[in-house]
Amino acid sequence: MVGMRGAYGGACNDDSKSRLHGGKAAEPEIASMAVHKVAPPPARSTASKMKVRVKETFFPDDPFRAFKGQPPGTQWLMAVRYLFPILDWVPSYSLSLFKSDLVAGLTIASLAIPQGISYAKLASLPPIIGLYSSFVPPMVYAVLGSSRDLAVGPVSISSLIMGSMLRQAVSPTAEPTLFLQLAFTSTLFAGLVQASLGILRLGFVIDFLSKATLVGFMAGAAIIVALQQLKALLGIVHFTTEMGIVPVMASVFHHTSEWSWQTILMGVCFLVFLLSARHVSIRWPKLFWVSACAPLASVTISTLLVFLFKAQNHGISIIGQLKCGLNRPSWDKLLFDTAYLGLTMKTGLVTGIISLTEGIAVGRTFASLKDYQIDGNKEMMAIGLMNVVGSCTSCYVTTGAFSRSAVNHNAGCKTAMSNVIMALTVMVTLLFLMPLFVYTPNVVLGAIIIAAVIGLIDFPAVYHIWKMDKMDFLVCVCAFAGVIFISVQEGLAIAVGISIFRVLMQITRPKMMVQGNIKGTDIYRDLHHYKEAQRVSGFLILAIEAPINFANSNYLNERIKRWIEEESFEQDKHTELHFIILDLSAVPAIDTSGIAFLIDIKKSIEKRGLELVLVNPTGEVMEKIQRANEAENYFRPDCLYLTTGEAIASLSALAKMTKP
Amino acid sequence: MVGMRGAYGGACNDDSKSRLHGGKAAEPEIASMAVHKVAPPPARSTASKMKVRVKETFFPDDPFRAFKGQPPGTQWLMAVRYLFPILDWVPSYSLSLFKSDLVAGLTIASLAIPQGISYAKLASLPPIIGLYSSFVPPMVYAVLGSSRDLAVGPVSISSLIMGSMLRQAVSPTAEPTLFLQLAFTSTLFAGLVQASLGILRLGFVIDFLSKATLVGFMAGAAIIVALQQLKALLGIVHFTTEMGIVPVMASVFHHTSEWSWQTILMGVCFLVFLLSARHVSIRWPKLFWVSACAPLASVTISTLLVFLFKAQNHGISIIGQLKCGLNRPSWDKLLFDTAYLGLTMKTGLVTGIISLTEGIAVGRTFASLKDYQIDGNKEMMAIGLMNVVGSCTSCYVTTGAFSRSAVNHNAGCKTAMSNVIMALTVMVTLLFLMPLFVYTPNVVLGAIIIAAVIGLIDFPAVYHIWKMDKMDFLVCVCAFAGVIFISVQEGLAIAVGISIFRVLMQITRPKMMVQGNIKGTDIYRDLHHYKEAQRVSGFLILAIEAPINFANSNYLNERIKRWIEEESFEQDKHTELHFIILDLSAVPAIDTSGIAFLIDIKKSIEKRGLELVLVNPTGEVMEKIQRANEAENYFRPDCLYLTTGEAIASLSALAKMTKP
Repeated sequence: MVGMRGAYGGACNDDSKSRLHGGKAAEPEIASMAVHKVAPPPARSTASKMKVRVKETFFPDDPFRAFKGQPPGTQWLMAVRYLFPILDWVPSYSLSLFKSDLVAGLTIASLAIPQGISYAKLASLPPIIGLYSSFVPPMVYAVLGSSRDLAVGPVSISSLIMGSMLRQAVSPTAEPTLFLQLAFTSTLFAGLVQASLGILRLGFVIDFLSKATLVGFMAGAAIIVALQQLKALLGIVHFTTEMGIVPVMASVFHHTSEWSWQTILMGVCFLVFLLSARHVSIRWPKLFWVSACAPLASVTISTLLVFLFKAQNHGISIIGQLKCGLNRPSWDKLLFDTAYLGLTMKTGLVTGIISLTEGIAVGRTFASLKDYQIDGNKEMMAIGLMNVVGSCTSCYVTTGAFSRSAVNHNAGCKTAMSNVIMALTVMVTLLFLMPLFVYTPNVVLGAIIIAAVIGLIDFPAVYHIWKMDKMDFLVCVCAFAGVIFISVQEGLAIAVGISIFRVLMQITRPKMMVQGNIKGTDIYRDLHHYKEAQRVSGFLILAIEAPINFANSNYLNERIKRWIEEESFEQDKHTELHFIILDLSAVPAIDTSGIAFLIDIKKSIEKRGLELVLVNPTGEVMEKIQRANEAENYFRPDCLYLTTGEAIASLSALAKMTKP
Repeated sequence: MVGMRGAYGGACNDDSKSRLHGGKAAEPEIASMAVHKVAPPPARSTASKMKVRVKETFFPDDPFRAFKGQPPGTQWLMAVRYLFPILDWVPSYSLSLFKSDLVAGLTIASLAIPQGISYAKLASLPPIIGLYSSFVPPMVYAVLGSSRDLAVGPVSISSLIMGSMLRQAVSPTAEPTLFLQLAFTSTLFAGLVQASLGILRLGFVIDFLSKATLVGFMAGAAIIVALQQLKALLGIVHFTTEMGIVPVMASVFHHTSEWSWQTILMGVCFLVFLLSARHVSIRWPKLFWVSACAPLASVTISTLLVFLFKAQNHGISIIGQLKCGLNRPSWDKLLFDTAYLGLTMKTGLVTGIISLTEGIAVGRTFASLKDYQIDGNKEMMAIGLMNVVGSCTSCYVTTGAFSRSAVNHNAGCKTAMSNVIMALTVMVTLLFLMPLFVYTPNVVLGAIIIAAVIGLIDFPAVYHIWKMDKMDFLVCVCAFAGVIFISVQEGLAIAVGISIFRVLMQITRPKMMVQGNIKGTDIYRDLHHYKEAQRVSGFLILAIEAPINFANSNYLNERIKRWIEEESFEQDKHTELHFIILDLSAVPAIDTSGIAFLIDIKKSIEKRGLELVLVNPTGEVMEKIQRANEAENYFRPDCLYLTTGEAIASLSALAKMTKP
């Protein structure tokens, strides 16, 4: 202990001294200090390493941990409960829980019915499909889903994307049946994509949609969706089928003749009503029900108005006849014709991933609010299966919606039962109340959509991102601009591309820091960060902060040579550079090119009459260095140290001994 | 000093004690130790940060460094010398240098002439184009290039790729002129791509072709090239135009009737001769000239044989009439017809990047052998310009060839003058010796190509990669398999894809280590790596080794929670976990999602009644943490420490004071 401390003291003295008297070396006793050797990591077979890596990649949450050491019977039970989370809460379900769920369920139902109809129209599908999609999927999710707050149903963005992608190939007005078939088929593929992502434990794929990307994308999509509603809001009949802001605005102002003042008047009134209701609920969270019920209220009121004033004869378009009855089976409608297979698969992939991202994000948000865990991959299976079932029961893509889940949460839902309540309410509507919607004006549906999607534009988040990270802000802006000017999918692709490119750049141009000693201690830190850190004369201490691989070995090579040249100037004249210390503590991995780089830089440093020393190579790096040594002994033990302090101490001692 | 050391001693005692007596806290004096605060990095404007980042990204070698503080006149001179490296050596050029260059130049010429003809045929171009391409580009490179060993001319792989890509659209036999035009145009685009990569300082793009990728790719391409030669070697007339190993072998055995024994006999003899010559030169490097002159010798001998025995009448196909004369200008042949623009651009891009990669790699190799610097981006401009000029003077894609440069180096070349000598020799050939090639049999050209490309299959490198890094080996194998079974371009694309995916995975699933204290010191290292490292009871010390960003924040969140749970078991029963220490030394950067993760994990750790402490956040991370604190004071100074040692020392002191 004392010996050690002496050694450390020596080390410190040495540094301080050498700084004071310009590189005069340390006291003799240091030469005899106990230096810790860099140990090779315990040998492991490639197979076992692979096993660990695969586990970390696909099973980071180690889902089978709980199963270990349980009797087979229990294991079976646990497996079943893992697959059907409903079994976790049903046995202990109580009346008090039911009361809260009932309230929450009815509240989200009153939101789900008008939104269902509206979003279906947004996807150019018959309104009834929207209600179908708010009936079966919630039931399925209640059984399979592990989130207690997720309110399942159709959502604006997926509806928008599906509609726009399918319309590129088929016109919903000209060939409604075909369009419907394609919608169901895409939903099936979306479900399959989602489920397989979960089963194959590839959940991390959606992590590549960063917060910044999503904020920008959502805002852009919200605007696109809102613009689409101008058709309904202005009562325009001949509207463009394109999405971009430019064609839409053009089409709006080319058909000014078609604007109907009655429609506009009604639209504006209800829009104002809905927005102020929304404002109230944001201002006083206890009044969440105001905005929750506003849509249904508007539908009811507007329908009544139309009915009373026969407004349909005064240029206000209405939904029209909707036939009663529950979802019809639709597996016979699934279309695998090669002519459309590519389209449906692509649509399924995009809508699947987008809706999945939304669903998982919502789930995670509320889980962390109520502090319970949800297993991302398990959720994906649930949502995926929900959509597969949906595609066979006349539903289109559904997921957990931000807005509705928030209402569900505020309304005090306790379990997934609230989804069941909602589904049952929708069922009642489907069975008996459909005729009431005959006179519902489309303009109100438009207003409902606008009021809903405005919530997707998250200004505080944008400001936060701008303050935090300018690059993230750029990503956000690109996503936004891409969506509103180019197209929804491409905007997303661009943003993801930039984010990934940025990650790659962090590897290609890794951070390196020149370290100095913090006076009177054994601590070495970045010279540019810590003003009290001082150069150790005779030494250049470099720390690399990235895996060393093919993408950066050339850069590191050039850069280090430049550091050395610059350092040779920096060092005060009467001491010149002797040792280059490369601190590898922050290098988690190294590949063949990386090793080649280490060997090359060592040689060229020695050609300059300097000496290269490696500090604290971590497990994998140390392994590779050893393998390299097998071929030729590049890195002798005496150029590997465990800490910079020890390296400097013993090297200066050495230097002193060699040239007295 | 003494205080410090006391403190450290205290820290160490504390650890050892707390281990011995199960987490009983440290001596009182520690409470009074001098703890180093984590300093915020010096404030810098976004602009200045951007500037630094841009510089590191595009000007890592700081090319303008030398210019600083020079008078304008000198700066101009330096700029000119930067653009025309020839000015560096011409003024001081001496007779002795010339002698070495002459020998080297003549040697590579004797290699370049037969190879030029052969490679042109490989690209389905008239043989003469190959000679043209060995005349102008070397001259241009001698003026612009900064490598002294690069021997410039057509190379097998680029020839192969250009030929195969253009043949997909146009048949060289049916429309030779169009094919030629496309070849020149692709060359122009290749040159433009290369030059612009250099000018835009995007040199790092080629770094994404890792060593492993190239080894696999080269080997695959070599085999494809060799297989193509079976046409000449067996004297087959009707040969497939496809590249893959399967169609080629099929076509070989479907046309057994066309095999001509005379051709096969001649081919085998010369192949054996060339290979044994190659073997000799590998065995005794001083005899490099044996393999260097073998091709020309074979051409001469075989031509004589054919001439004497009138072998062309016995089923041995010959090159035939080649007209004398130097390169004709070909800018009028450049074709920008939209019908072929896409094809030529694509071909230009692929061949450009591939040949550039080869050229730069060769340049770097020999530069490091002779220990002089070459500026990658400058080289790209040189090679690019060389190809642009070439495309206007009837040349196709050229670059520095591995084999020829090696010969050039062994022959003792001193400057780029050897390229000039070679070019002049080729010129003489073009002017006067073309008639001699009339009787040169194609089979010998085939043999020459095979002998040349066999050198591209680098078994030692493959073995080295296998030993070093299994993942790299996988990449290598994929590149190889992709090239020989699918196609040259796709094989390359697959390999690059895998390498990039691997880099992304290193970020998505970053390394984390649980650290322990090395007894009697203040050093903390990976528990799995250092057996002597021991857990500090009451503490869980985690080190993250990657930038924290959107791609891994979810993973880190789940993973850390799992560490904590597992740790709670690990800790011996009579002490439970109090503090989680997150060592951020190896976290170079963090984005908005990363900060969100830090805040989230802190909250959920506190929910478990534990305390989170951050150790040594580096500059950028510290900055972001401060900005986060502006909103709400998440990370108070007392949860930020500079070293793990100090954190543990003062925390255990605290713990003791709080519960005595």
